[in-house]
Amino acid sequence: MVIEAGLNEVGYDIPARLGDRLEDVQTPALIVDLDAFERNCERMRAYVQDMGVRLRAHAKTHKSADIARYQMAKGGACGICCQKVSEAEALARAGIRDILIANEVTDPAKIDRLARLGLKARIIVCVDDISVVSTLSDAAGRHGSTIEALVEIDCGARRCGVRDSEQAVTIAQAIESAAHLKFAGLQAYFGSAQHIVDPSERRTAIGTAIDLARETVVRLREVGLECSIVGGAGTGSYNIEGRSGIYNELQCGSYIFMDAHYGRVVDDDGSVVGRFENALFVLTSVMSHPSADRAVCDAGLKAHSIDSGLPVVFERPDLSFIGASDEHGVIRDPHGTLKLNERLKLVPGHCDPTCNLYDWYVGVRNGRVEALWPVTARGKLY
Amino acid sequence: MVIEAGLNEVGYDIPARLGDRLEDVQTPALIVDLDAFERNCERMRAYVQDMGVRLRAHAKTHKSADIARYQMAKGGACGICCQKVSEAEALARAGIRDILIANEVTDPAKIDRLARLGLKARIIVCVDDISVVSTLSDAAGRHGSTIEALVEIDCGARRCGVRDSEQAVTIAQAIESAAHLKFAGLQAYFGSAQHIVDPSERRTAIGTAIDLARETVVRLREVGLECSIVGGAGTGSYNIEGRSGIYNELQCGSYIFMDAHYGRVVDDDGSVVGRFENALFVLTSVMSHPSADRAVCDAGLKAHSIDSGLPVVFERPDLSFIGASDEHGVIRDPHGTLKLNERLKLVPGHCDPTCNLYDWYVGVRNGRVEALWPVTARGKLY
Repeated sequence: MVIEAGLNEVGYDIPARLGDRLEDVQTPALIVDLDAFERNCERMRAYVQDMGVRLRAHAKTHKSADIARYQMAKGGACGICCQKVSEAEALARAGIRDILIANEVTDPAKIDRLARLGLKARIIVCVDDISVVSTLSDAAGRHGSTIEALVEIDCGARRCGVRDSEQAVTIAQAIESAAHLKFAGLQAYFGSAQHIVDPSERRTAIGTAIDLARETVVRLREVGLECSIVGGAGTGSYNIEGRSGIYNELQCGSYIFMDAHYGRVVDDDGSVVGRFENALFVLTSVMSHPSADRAVCDAGLKAHSIDSGLPVVFERPDLSFIGASDEHGVIRDPHGTLKLNERLKLVPGHCDPTCNLYDWYVGVRNGRVEALWPVTARGKLY
Repeated sequence: MVIEAGLNEVGYDIPARLGDRLEDVQTPALIVDLDAFERNCERMRAYVQDMGVRLRAHAKTHKSADIARYQMAKGGACGICCQKVSEAEALARAGIRDILIANEVTDPAKIDRLARLGLKARIIVCVDDISVVSTLSDAAGRHGSTIEALVEIDCGARRCGVRDSEQAVTIAQAIESAAHLKFAGLQAYFGSAQHIVDPSERRTAIGTAIDLARETVVRLREVGLECSIVGGAGTGSYNIEGRSGIYNELQCGSYIFMDAHYGRVVDDDGSVVGRFENALFVLTSVMSHPSADRAVCDAGLKAHSIDSGLPVVFERPDLSFIGASDEHGVIRDPHGTLKLNERLKLVPGHCDPTCNLYDWYVGVRNGRVEALWPVTARGKLY
């Protein structure tokens, strides 16, 4: 029967075909406005060039080999970051050759995979526990690779990382002494500060991170260890660490897409941070309009992540997305203007976990589907 | 190179192999306690048999053909529900032959797919807008199939569904008159009432749904239309609609797994509703223990859904999961007992969107991996 036909059927495996009109894309779908995406990449390329620092674009946002390649070819990125070994594997298989796992890897089986991956790509990983150093080195020795390691310091996020420069020095010396590791510097990312709305409060918070990073760099230098990488920063604070004189690699991810949460983070002049534009949307359709002022769309909790707030209906200030259940979104439509099957573009609350829900990016330009990019590392959690 | 070897590599494509010990499963992973899962299925089978109603198990929870087949073979289910056409396609391709899409399908392209699917499975769909009736019938006629249709009534959820029995009668008559449709009854699901913690408040809320369903069934009978299906209910209220004398098909989904949210919903004696057990866990590993009372695990927002609250650490009342970011979970460990790489089982806050994040269920019995079930319809959003 026809239904068995199988792969690459629109509405089953893929949301659209190249050349389709936007209005024919099956919903819910993850849409990239290619013009806005390219402008965001160019903005960040110019910013890091101007500040004289490197960009190591964070692939945890997009998990896409196509986007990672674009960032390295045209967006000024020297390499990429990711968070998991299986993400790194997926991107290395797709040709990315300079990868920082901006995270701790402590499980021996994962460390073995990481060391193996070091045969085909430059691999850098973070360490915050001295007991892991020998496991990393032994695995690299076993596979004949070299792993570069950053010491992670907790500069305010209260997540992973050592709390003071003395601990950092102790671990850095252990790394430098290990036969198959190379000490590469510091990881100093202050995640929760990225979303501080007010720019002066954001500068104050990031200032404490810069101070700890500077102190640690100085202490390491005193024992003869130079940091070739001092990495951190995100879309909310790229220009603070970038102008610090201490950080030299920025790990921004969300700037390519933006989301409703980042859309509230502003620069001193009140404009959205970095003037980055919304380039990522969840395309959704109205599937019910049961009362005059309330419509229901087909994008619920499996179509976007609400951990950082509800999505915003793009360029429709008359509409509010007011609630999500598994498969439905409820939209307040006070003037009753929405029609059944009408399409809306939602700016997701949080781009990273939203992208992880989809198999495909639908790249759109001038109202037509120009690109279908697989979400290469979707679900690569290990 | 070895890394190119490809498919079914533990830690890349799959979290484990059959026969592996639980402690060797790569984390984060979605674990099913097979004994608890089978007991949950048997409990629900006995409940519906005792109440004299049918179970149409909701596959939106698990999206798994293996689990759907088990529910139909051993768990007393007459068929399954799902929410999306592409979910129905995935499950029909895997051999499921009696499928209710417990949701509206209004887009003409999706309706066309649905009508085509009617050639290989019994297909039932919900309608709450009379304008869709002719599109459905024309599509079924075009493909030579028959689609059964339920009228959805909004019995309190304020989502989809018509608001009164007169509108329901009008749509039901249109369905019955359409050449290629068959009127099959009512959809009357009160989702938000499922999680009312107190059993008497839950009965009161569901009582209004039962009243509207009864009134509508009577009105339909007055115009000569019999409801072969009056469907609704979930894990929180299965025994209320089930004993109503009005509902005859229950659409419970979460009972097979349970989650932290449902774990707070109780019966009159204070025990967890239906005595269903936690059978679903996110297996996670401690990846950092940066301060005495705080550990960080490898299960963040991409490993479980926090829309209905944070996960609970299973059988570890000394530990609290206090925060999640994209790739990390923060655990309060007041006695500092956790060790690096120690495994924990998290009861996710909300099972349905959590399962949708994974490619595999790891079925475990007696500490060994006994089954690897693909999440057949993962990401099938269309």
